[in-house]
Amino acid sequence: MTAPSPSTAPLAAGPLFAAVDIGGTKIAGALVDSAGTLAHRVQLPTPAKESGAEVLAVVHRVLDHLAAAPGWAAVTAVGIGSAGPVDLVGGTVSPVNIPGWREFPLTAEVSAHPAVGARPVALAGDGVAMAAAEHWRGAARGVDHALCLVVSTGVGAGLVLNGAVHPGPSGNAGHLGHITVDLDGEPCPCGSRGCLENLASGTAIARRALAAGWEPVGADRSARAVAEDALAGHPVALAAYDRAAQALAAGIAATATLVDLRRVVIGGGVAAAGPVLFEPLARHLDRYAALPYVRGLEVRRAELGTDAGLIGAAALCR
Amino acid sequence: MTAPSPSTAPLAAGPLFAAVDIGGTKIAGALVDSAGTLAHRVQLPTPAKESGAEVLAVVHRVLDHLAAAPGWAAVTAVGIGSAGPVDLVGGTVSPVNIPGWREFPLTAEVSAHPAVGARPVALAGDGVAMAAAEHWRGAARGVDHALCLVVSTGVGAGLVLNGAVHPGPSGNAGHLGHITVDLDGEPCPCGSRGCLENLASGTAIARRALAAGWEPVGADRSARAVAEDALAGHPVALAAYDRAAQALAAGIAATATLVDLRRVVIGGGVAAAGPVLFEPLARHLDRYAALPYVRGLEVRRAELGTDAGLIGAAALCR
Repeated sequence: MTAPSPSTAPLAAGPLFAAVDIGGTKIAGALVDSAGTLAHRVQLPTPAKESGAEVLAVVHRVLDHLAAAPGWAAVTAVGIGSAGPVDLVGGTVSPVNIPGWREFPLTAEVSAHPAVGARPVALAGDGVAMAAAEHWRGAARGVDHALCLVVSTGVGAGLVLNGAVHPGPSGNAGHLGHITVDLDGEPCPCGSRGCLENLASGTAIARRALAAGWEPVGADRSARAVAEDALAGHPVALAAYDRAAQALAAGIAATATLVDLRRVVIGGGVAAAGPVLFEPLARHLDRYAALPYVRGLEVRRAELGTDAGLIGAAALCR
Repeated sequence: MTAPSPSTAPLAAGPLFAAVDIGGTKIAGALVDSAGTLAHRVQLPTPAKESGAEVLAVVHRVLDHLAAAPGWAAVTAVGIGSAGPVDLVGGTVSPVNIPGWREFPLTAEVSAHPAVGARPVALAGDGVAMAAAEHWRGAARGVDHALCLVVSTGVGAGLVLNGAVHPGPSGNAGHLGHITVDLDGEPCPCGSRGCLENLASGTAIARRALAAGWEPVGADRSARAVAEDALAGHPVALAAYDRAAQALAAGIAATATLVDLRRVVIGGGVAAAGPVLFEPLARHLDRYAALPYVRGLEVRRAELGTDAGLIGAAALCR
């Protein structure tokens, strides 16, 4: 169990939320106050290759830690952001990266933790949680119509519509990485083809650069190394980011055309590449976002980094 | 001015709505009761090549007709569905097919009609109005998350989210025809490229069939004639519809992935082709709608036909 991190802070008086962020590599928890401050953080590795019961045991250990914190009595609800897909109707999750959980009744199993008692348990996919976080405390604050995305090894996202996060009936809405932007494109592991993620993720950027003859200087063959070479003007590295930016622009413009957005917030490791991504993105958006009501879409960097999962899980309780 | 049509019906007692449907070829009006019944219909040609003032004069003539109807005193609001783009923030419209109207203050000009008085005036794009109609009285009745589209010379659409029509802040949301489904596709007149409409509209179907060597038997070179030959098994005609169905499937699946839908409702002249469109659509949807929460999307034919514009304009007032 990790030691208290530097971002642990004193909580404001008043009701608190217990937040749990479940991913394929870690399961994190914190208590969160009404200002979005995190305290009593805990983070444990996800035993993703083990049985569903063993993964649940880690979730319960996270809850044990939170329930032992001095503020627990003030907790009014438990919020969970989980790797997807989730199913809000059944309260279940089937995370791609946690094979032991298939239609796993996570809401009920969290409710069954003795310390949770009668507190309501809110669940959503991690993209929805990230959007809820950026809307509550980050770069989408005060914006009623926003798309918030994370571009890292994959592409996840969530929507804010009419002033509230939009989980959709299943809790998975906003899943930008798996919209088709290339009708006749390559098959995607999801079963569809031409998915945005297969063109714009960090994985795709590195794969494209390597296939086009990029040779990393060091051992790092990831999108981060491609970004460094792109910053230095390497044409193959620049082209790999340009193509990712083009696909992102097409997907963002499609989303804006469909739901009518005012702002786009982008985080994740690939976004950390900065101008290497954002400059071609602006150029391509100018082309794909052509209709009058879609033009001039504001693009901002995400503000909450990896805390977005926990802050978003808490935001689901509001 | 047209004579009363066979669908003119007695209105229920109680509050009524005045509905106006503005398109590039006609401007229609009716009084609508709380059950969605239309009465006192009127329809005039749109003087689309004339000045903005002349187009407005026709809208005022439609309102004159409605205001002279015996039920006018019971009218509580005026609803307008207009060819887009519209701008709800400014209350203006700039219909592509009505060049005399650019940022034309339609809401204010309708409010200025002497008979309208202090009644509220609701405005939205025609795709939004069609969705509002099918949600209120048609094939999306009782469905909280739906996409309703019209495939004819163009492709228009609107969304129902969380039980209500979703106009978006501008009033244009759901504009499915101009999402990019082919990243590197042909330029679209809208300024973007690879737009769904350029692949799936009736215009696109006819153009594709002709380019591939289809020779119409009669004078009709439209998608309707292509559909007749497709029904008879003509391979080029079948292929033209198949490609349109593929593009529609990719766009519908993208929409379902983004906002999480439960039903898709399809109307318009191209949809009237029936199995020639709907059979390949089901096949392609099965491929593009791959994620668990998107699978098994219900596809239904629209129920309201050309009345959707007026019924939807009234629905905006509810």
